[in-house]
Amino acid sequence: MTAMMGRDDFVAALRQIGAERYHHLHPFQKRLESGQLTREQVQAWALNRYYYQSMIPVKDSLILARLTTSELRREWRQRIIDHDGTDTERGGIEKWIALTDGVGLDRAYVESGEGILPATRFAVDAYVHFVHERSLLEAIASSLTELFSPQVIGTRVRGMLEHYDFIAPETLAYFDKRPVQAKRDSDFALDYCVTHARRAEEQKAVLNALRFKCQVLWAQLDALWYSYVEPAMVPPDAWRPGEGLAA
Amino acid sequence: MTAMMGRDDFVAALRQIGAERYHHLHPFQKRLESGQLTREQVQAWALNRYYYQSMIPVKDSLILARLTTSELRREWRQRIIDHDGTDTERGGIEKWIALTDGVGLDRAYVESGEGILPATRFAVDAYVHFVHERSLLEAIASSLTELFSPQVIGTRVRGMLEHYDFIAPETLAYFDKRPVQAKRDSDFALDYCVTHARRAEEQKAVLNALRFKCQVLWAQLDALWYSYVEPAMVPPDAWRPGEGLAA
Repeated sequence: MTAMMGRDDFVAALRQIGAERYHHLHPFQKRLESGQLTREQVQAWALNRYYYQSMIPVKDSLILARLTTSELRREWRQRIIDHDGTDTERGGIEKWIALTDGVGLDRAYVESGEGILPATRFAVDAYVHFVHERSLLEAIASSLTELFSPQVIGTRVRGMLEHYDFIAPETLAYFDKRPVQAKRDSDFALDYCVTHARRAEEQKAVLNALRFKCQVLWAQLDALWYSYVEPAMVPPDAWRPGEGLAA
Repeated sequence: MTAMMGRDDFVAALRQIGAERYHHLHPFQKRLESGQLTREQVQAWALNRYYYQSMIPVKDSLILARLTTSELRREWRQRIIDHDGTDTERGGIEKWIALTDGVGLDRAYVESGEGILPATRFAVDAYVHFVHERSLLEAIASSLTELFSPQVIGTRVRGMLEHYDFIAPETLAYFDKRPVQAKRDSDFALDYCVTHARRAEEQKAVLNALRFKCQVLWAQLDALWYSYVEPAMVPPDAWRPGEGLAA
């Protein structure tokens, strides 16, 4: 039987998962940041990740439905507002469409989801099902990848602006507010997990939920690499370079 | 508005999906059959496909729970019996374990599912969720890949016995009965889909369910190729050659 970890050790174990498994280590991410991708490869990334973005409020709504107090739901609903926007402020999904616009993809094609890789859909849907089927603690823990995103976003935005002449600052507006939002959200989720994991098995479940979520992100980049970098074998029906471009 | 197809055109459209999208066209499958894979690559295939095999009775139980007559359930339950076995006859899952035994993998490691690729899990689980969430017609239609398996199994078994000295006939016992079972099962499912798709939209849903299932199979081979053939980048935590071998 494993003993329960103290708070500091538990938080350190969570951060260690990020250090070893977060997708900032993936070669696709490294090429994206360092300007080594072609425009078509950046299009493939923007197109596929749109599906991930579009499902975030769905997974957050499923979590919202499982929270039993107004206080918790008020906290969590902010994530949905951030992604879906308000009358006066664009949400994250709309800003992601600005990104796919910016790299030259047709908006209706992107929104249809037609050209995304099956592996993207399977990975993203696995995330949605996970928050629906696992314990609430695990569902919340699976959001903890946001602990690792703020610094990665800075590197990514700087690198993309520097290296790609087809990327304008407005194209990357999605990322402007994400570091602050991700910090706020992950502070809350981390505190929730530390407080509610009261047995060693629950701590283990939290760690595994974070590992699972790292797999969801990693698998999306694997599929992009496999299909569009090396060996560049696009599966049947998925987007091929030159398709789905804005008129 | 699309017109409804006649029976022959509808069946031809289903078979066309197989001709273009079934995984017999995947380069991993072609290498497997023609003896071009290493023993480690065959191990990776056997290990990952075990997870698919192990979930087949789960997805069939979900379909069973949605069938509303004893007649339909008697028909469908045979699939579960085939995979789980009886007191006197080994089921398909046990025979798959004979296959992983035969290629030198440790049985407890295989059954734990620890080393499978996240992309395998996401694809297989997508199949399980599909039969749970979609219409019964679509759930049944997603089994129609068995229309295409009997001939592929013959090619695969012959090729593997001919080319790999580490494969014995007993190792491939899983495939002995599958052609007959698959023919019986797909005859039933095809008849069900032809009879119950009474509108053009339902025919379209059936065709899309079969496309989806082809994606589930294809994505599993993509992940094997990507991780173990080219560029051979194994994701974090997944099986690496040399791990999980029988003592």
